Amino acid sequence: MTKKYIIAVDLGGTNLKVALLDLKYNIKDREILSTRSFMEKEELISGIVYSINRVIKYNNLDKTDILGIGLGLPGPIDAKSGIVHFFPNIPGWKEVPLRDILKERLGLPVSLDNDAKIMVLAEHRLGAAKGFANVLCMTLGTGIGGGIIIGGKLYRGFNNAAGEVGHLPINEKGPLCNCGSVGCLEAYIGNNKIIRAARKEFKRQISLEELSLLAANGNKAAIKIWCNVGRHLGFALAGVVNLLNLDAIVMGGGMANAGKVLFDSVKEALRGQAMSVQGFHVKIFRAKLGNDAGLIGAAIMMKEGAVL
Amino acid sequence: MTKKYIIAVDLGGTNLKVALLDLKYNIKDREILSTRSFMEKEELISGIVYSINRVIKYNNLDKTDILGIGLGLPGPIDAKSGIVHFFPNIPGWKEVPLRDILKERLGLPVSLDNDAKIMVLAEHRLGAAKGFANVLCMTLGTGIGGGIIIGGKLYRGFNNAAGEVGHLPINEKGPLCNCGSVGCLEAYIGNNKIIRAARKEFKRQISLEELSLLAANGNKAAIKIWCNVGRHLGFALAGVVNLLNLDAIVMGGGMANAGKVLFDSVKEALRGQAMSVQGFHVKIFRAKLGNDAGLIGAAIMMKEGAVL
Repeated sequence: MTKKYIIAVDLGGTNLKVALLDLKYNIKDREILSTRSFMEKEELISGIVYSINRVIKYNNLDKTDILGIGLGLPGPIDAKSGIVHFFPNIPGWKEVPLRDILKERLGLPVSLDNDAKIMVLAEHRLGAAKGFANVLCMTLGTGIGGGIIIGGKLYRGFNNAAGEVGHLPINEKGPLCNCGSVGCLEAYIGNNKIIRAARKEFKRQISLEELSLLAANGNKAAIKIWCNVGRHLGFALAGVVNLLNLDAIVMGGGMANAGKVLFDSVKEALRGQAMSVQGFHVKIFRAKLGNDAGLIGAAIMMKEGAVL
Repeated sequence: MTKKYIIAVDLGGTNLKVALLDLKYNIKDREILSTRSFMEKEELISGIVYSINRVIKYNNLDKTDILGIGLGLPGPIDAKSGIVHFFPNIPGWKEVPLRDILKERLGLPVSLDNDAKIMVLAEHRLGAAKGFANVLCMTLGTGIGGGIIIGGKLYRGFNNAAGEVGHLPINEKGPLCNCGSVGCLEAYIGNNKIIRAARKEFKRQISLEELSLLAANGNKAAIKIWCNVGRHLGFALAGVVNLLNLDAIVMGGGMANAGKVLFDSVKEALRGQAMSVQGFHVKIFRAKLGNDAGLIGAAIMMKEGAVL
């Protein structure tokens, strides 16, 4: 029997998404659960298994119709052995052989990887970075994550830990970062830093969405905050561009919704700081696949066997 | 007739070296000329041609014994088309199709590339980085150059401009760099910066060699200067290591002669700043091939056809 579908799982600190995709990566069905509704690791694993079985059944399919399961996960992963080292934002996970566990419970092939790697794969194959050989793809959120394509292929580094663009240091005397070091890019422009700056400026709690809207409507204080973010980001990215002579940088995640004001200031800072050849060559794009990048990327990884 | 030799050329701002190597990269003969003794571009090209012909003749060889010519050059090169964009330290060169010129005058195959790329190739194939998959190799001199190996292969980037590790920015409010931007690593630790710091400290002109010797003999002021260099260097390299999850970093060039005091402080700063997985994994080595890296690398490039 021909395998016609892939199940993709996108696990985040907030949501657990499970979807059915055809082999051209069209999402045919999906369900979204709250990650926090699962109290423990065991519950979460069972929740994933139930949800996958439910999606198969509700679509009148059989396991023999399914090529396999692809999972994007929010933390460091050994993609080769299928082991989750830990999740920074979901407690109770330490060195969990998740691939083997799911394989046994589901009786299907399982691929899994870190969500930043999954996102760059999706954007490279079907999104903003399609056709470019050497690409950095960033997720701008609470953390600043990233994934790298070199010569058209996902670049992992030895420990599958490449791509940590949020931890490019940009000031030896900078603020302390969550990673324990000083002056990392993330210590300047993580979501919480921006929200704090906005609260200080507007004397009230203000969300990133509102801050983006204010800037789009011409509010000078909001524009100034986004320009500051863009300046730090462009400065750090100039180093990456000088080092890797990249073809494209793709930026997604909640912060990318700030849109033009942010992207313009990133470009200005990057072009001002980078060497002329490298700075001139690189293109800066907004991620195209939005919230579905995780699901689409997980399905691509499964189908391509990109992990192996 | 079997080709038994390669001619390698290592052109620097100071010296023009031409050598005969066998196919195992043993240097059988060499001559060293002063680059400055050639007043113009035409003279320098003729000097290279004469020197190559002389080396062939003095070794009782014939052009039919020569596999080809490999050249390492001190500036940005289009390795594919064989065009020299310019040399920062040799005036009069602009968009020179040097490969075609030499091919025609010599009647032999010619490969050429930037000296930093040549050096990383040499250190990766025969030197300190042998056997490592993902490597950054740096030349610490007046400028801070670099080359990158990814997956065992020379990584060029789109414009053959990858590897500019000297232009990683480490402070938005840092000193102006020769590249025109601010706060680049090179603006902190280029040779001239170190010599200036030493002159200020010792109230007299002092060479890098003497500064290295003083540090090796326990002079505290000299040690402090090298530790400062190592701190900046390790800080910048932490970003590269976080981004690329490298296996090894190799450091050569005049500054590397400072030895243990410099390397220890680089390691300390890097391990302190990098993320734990990446920082723990990467190895830091001193370049092994010394002043011959340029000749050996140029011969390797020629033989491997690494440019094509």
